[in-house]
Amino acid sequence: MKVGWIGLGNMGLPMAWNLLKAGHELVVYNRTRSRADSLQSDGAKVAATPAEAAAAPVLVTMVADDPALEDLIFGSGKVLEVLGRGATHISMSTISVALSKRLAEAHAKRGQVYVSAPVFGRPEAAVAAKLFVVAAGPQKAVSACQPLFDAMGQRTFVMGEDAPVANVIKLGGNFLIASTIESFGEAFALVRKYGVNPHQFLDFLTSSLFTAPVHKTYGKLIADDQYQPVGFKVPLGLKDVRLVLAAAEAASVPMPLASMVRDHFVTLMAQGKQDEDWATIARLAADNAGLKPIE
Amino acid sequence: MKVGWIGLGNMGLPMAWNLLKAGHELVVYNRTRSRADSLQSDGAKVAATPAEAAAAPVLVTMVADDPALEDLIFGSGKVLEVLGRGATHISMSTISVALSKRLAEAHAKRGQVYVSAPVFGRPEAAVAAKLFVVAAGPQKAVSACQPLFDAMGQRTFVMGEDAPVANVIKLGGNFLIASTIESFGEAFALVRKYGVNPHQFLDFLTSSLFTAPVHKTYGKLIADDQYQPVGFKVPLGLKDVRLVLAAAEAASVPMPLASMVRDHFVTLMAQGKQDEDWATIARLAADNAGLKPIE
Amino acid sequence: MKVGWIGLGNMGLPMAWNLLKAGHELVVYNRTRSRADSLQSDGAKVAATPAEAAAAPVLVTMVADDPALEDLIFGSGKVLEVLGRGATHISMSTISVALSKRLAEAHAKRGQVYVSAPVFGRPEAAVAAKLFVVAAGPQKAVSACQPLFDAMGQRTFVMGEDAPVANVIKLGGNFLIASTIESFGEAFALVRKYGVNPHQFLDFLTSSLFTAPVHKTYGKLIADDQYQPVGFKVPLGLKDVRLVLAAAEAASVPMPLASMVRDHFVTLMAQGKQDEDWATIARLAADNAGLKPIE
Amino acid sequence: MKVGWIGLGNMGLPMAWNLLKAGHELVVYNRTRSRADSLQSDGAKVAATPAEAAAAPVLVTMVADDPALEDLIFGSGKVLEVLGRGATHISMSTISVALSKRLAEAHAKRGQVYVSAPVFGRPEAAVAAKLFVVAAGPQKAVSACQPLFDAMGQRTFVMGEDAPVANVIKLGGNFLIASTIESFGEAFALVRKYGVNPHQFLDFLTSSLFTAPVHKTYGKLIADDQYQPVGFKVPLGLKDVRLVLAAAEAASVPMPLASMVRDHFVTLMAQGKQDEDWATIARLAADNAGLKPIE
Repeated sequence: MKVGWIGLGNMGLPMAWNLLKAGHELVVYNRTRSRADSLQSDGAKVAATPAEAAAAPVLVTMVADDPALEDLIFGSGKVLEVLGRGATHISMSTISVALSKRLAEAHAKRGQVYVSAPVFGRPEAAVAAKLFVVAAGPQKAVSACQPLFDAMGQRTFVMGEDAPVANVIKLGGNFLIASTIESFGEAFALVRKYGVNPHQFLDFLTSSLFTAPVHKTYGKLIADDQYQPVGFKVPLGLKDVRLVLAAAEAASVPMPLASMVRDHFVTLMAQGKQDEDWATIARLAADNAGLKPIE
Repeated sequence: MKVGWIGLGNMGLPMAWNLLKAGHELVVYNRTRSRADSLQSDGAKVAATPAEAAAAPVLVTMVADDPALEDLIFGSGKVLEVLGRGATHISMSTISVALSKRLAEAHAKRGQVYVSAPVFGRPEAAVAAKLFVVAAGPQKAVSACQPLFDAMGQRTFVMGEDAPVANVIKLGGNFLIASTIESFGEAFALVRKYGVNPHQFLDFLTSSLFTAPVHKTYGKLIADDQYQPVGFKVPLGLKDVRLVLAAAEAASVPMPLASMVRDHFVTLMAQGKQDEDWATIARLAADNAGLKPIE
Repeated sequence: MKVGWIGLGNMGLPMAWNLLKAGHELVVYNRTRSRADSLQSDGAKVAATPAEAAAAPVLVTMVADDPALEDLIFGSGKVLEVLGRGATHISMSTISVALSKRLAEAHAKRGQVYVSAPVFGRPEAAVAAKLFVVAAGPQKAVSACQPLFDAMGQRTFVMGEDAPVANVIKLGGNFLIASTIESFGEAFALVRKYGVNPHQFLDFLTSSLFTAPVHKTYGKLIADDQYQPVGFKVPLGLKDVRLVLAAAEAASVPMPLASMVRDHFVTLMAQGKQDEDWATIARLAADNAGLKPIE
Repeated sequence: MKVGWIGLGNMGLPMAWNLLKAGHELVVYNRTRSRADSLQSDGAKVAATPAEAAAAPVLVTMVADDPALEDLIFGSGKVLEVLGRGATHISMSTISVALSKRLAEAHAKRGQVYVSAPVFGRPEAAVAAKLFVVAAGPQKAVSACQPLFDAMGQRTFVMGEDAPVANVIKLGGNFLIASTIESFGEAFALVRKYGVNPHQFLDFLTSSLFTAPVHKTYGKLIADDQYQPVGFKVPLGLKDVRLVLAAAEAASVPMPLASMVRDHFVTLMAQGKQDEDWATIARLAADNAGLKPIE
């Protein structure tokens, strides 16, 4: 397929590269052009402007946040204007439900097709084409995009025709990851204060009721008390919980645990931990219990 | 082995029965005698008093709560007095860390051996001998008890010589289960408010990052919005979180998520939900979002 | 003084009327014109457009929220364009700190003067000219506006030259009111459950350590369990707490109590209590304790 | 009146001294005898045992906590045994509602009279006889004790015949003080982060809606960021909130704000702040916002 691609960050770059490997033709655009150039040897054409990438029949966007995507589609990027009638915009970024709704309406008005397809997985999973894709939008379009999803992920969950629903699910999932970190943080602080070896505790947990990837991945970081490598930074965690709470408030859903996690991310920001992994909310629980970092 | 057994509730009865099936000799005591009698046909001797059961070289207790065990050991049950020098008391109930410490000290003073071995699993798991046992106490005694644990559980996690540590781990684990229910409750309320089919959401979760038994078991109850059968009642959930918070306070560990879950259990008590499963804290999240029960 | 006035809601109308009574010349604009007409007999000129009101050397705005003020100043209202060089815009609405900053910068760029002067007090206090005014902005301008503040309020607190600071203080104050309601709600639920007469409890509180207007005003509503008349509705309470949390997040200040109050407002929204007074967060505390409303 | 007095701590000593000054005859007992001796020159007789003090027709107890009072009345102190038929025990300590109930029942059974009369006020207020007394118990007994209350306090609030109700009110009041500190802590952290002078903010608050003693006393400590002198230590604050939550749980009243405050006290304990004033929960809010202490 001919695909325009905008956004080549930690996630976007390996995802685009997997499309190239699978034989798709890509026209890529990135604000920092050098990252786009790095895909040239793999066969990608480099676009000088977002509009150039948006000339393809399918456009994928994978950018940092709401403002970046808004500027791209409605603002200086002019994508809404240049995207063809019948062309498809697949938005894979983690964005607000509100923006997803606005995109669905704006594209429909112009006879364009909008598919929302956010992904789960850290950069390593993106490299290994092991992402989980949650897709929603017009059924025909979602089916047509399936080969692209297959090239990037291990499984696609199709969630109906209402595109913003995919974003709600993405946010719900991220909330559950953050909640797992918070709860593990508190539990590990408790047992460590009683002299339990955290790795023994983790072994017990992951051999009994808590055997999921989310338990193993974050449990190891917390038991080691080493939040390296940084896969997803604190400000991104804060941004996502903010989007969760905004979606929840718009639908009148109180989420006290999301509020608590948000407060903890704000505390980390105040402590100057902008560049640490979001799993350090577990370290905050240890700090508050008077536990010194394990060297 | 010759084993005295005290406490034949929903958990204790199948556990004792599994010991009998494995060929151990049991002298059983229960306050409501009829439950003890039910084991007679399987070869158990029925004791008329706790002291009679405590005449065995190994005594297992599996009772409701701290006051019940205190009365048994230090009070009217007189177990501390009658238990033999060198005999072992295996406490398998979910009790406070403080009481476990007191037991460890009192038994040691009398030349008795104390092993703490709380279990994870609902009554069905007890019947199927699929419990997880977390054991701590003098190494020799724990090893000697291993055949008993093997007859009741699928795996034993030995956690060192300091008996109360097993209780800390039990409480930490229960806290993590309750936290999972709370977080799922909030997440499902969110996605349902946006029209997502809860079973589709659950399928996504349990096929991607949230594949653990704790996710599947409680996720199903929440997606169905049917908290049946009642495996573990609200007041027991409240009791356990209270024990978590007491242990945490004694060690100066703030656990805000445990506090929040506790508040929710108190709300359920005020709503008259004493006889419902503790997973109804997820229903509370749905109620607070204005979601009517799914029929 | 010659004053343009935009916004004649529950608060704005009596405030403008007090200016007229004090002898100032007003050109008033309101979206629903009939409310503006009602001031004509008191000597006000009625403007057909915001721009007409903005022709005065001093313009006061008292509108519902951020979007309303943004549209007025930067959007269809065109106030920024038509306000004269050297003219003063006094913003008295409760708005976000972020918007206040944007206004300060935009007005300064055009050689206009921006004063932020939000007020404390319910509609009755506005009628009685008993508001508290918190003013910040260029010292000369604030001094020049003092006669206007004197006509509307019982006291003006001048908070320096940085206008948005007044909005921070306004939000901080509203947070403290909401916190007082929350804490009283919980305390009254507790004592009522023990059979204490709530009016006896209130009498004790307001005769000992809790003698402030905030205690008396809200304590009475809560002791009566009658949240009438509706002075400030739930959605406005939610909006204000949202602004508090946004300002706090922007400055990296965790405010867990603000988060909790916000969750409670969201619950009230889900319960369909949009038209009740924000003090009903105290009723929510009573509900959660299983206390039926006092008839 | 002839009065036995047990407990001469920071509060008890000046309270007893005020009784002596008012002409009452005291037999005093204190574990650390030197504090009792200090009252001898003022006319007090010093008792060698609690039982000696309990020989009087009226006995006042003012001790540290539940265990101390339990030991005194039911344990080694033997007060229950020696107190005369028809004699009155006035308990002025801050104790649990549960213990107060137990005392009411035990005294009644022996034909003794029990009055619960906890007090509000810091040590300075005790010295100045400016305490607030909250009294409940048999009406005749409470009336008879009134001259004693008058000698120690500025006002007595009589709350009916059910003695434990006075303890509920005491705990509710302490909860409201702690909540005020928490909310001020968060609000001051917010405004300080925006460059507002905390004393200017306090002046605004205490001149407008927040004029109560609780606002002025704690507001000053927080604005100064100096929590001196230590009037009420962190562990006592934690103890009181624990009693609030226990009373609330027993009556099925969720108090999420009490839970939050409790978590913050536990954090202070983990930070080693056992010897600081409980108002340092406001400093914790500032710490979490990254604000360094004001020198």
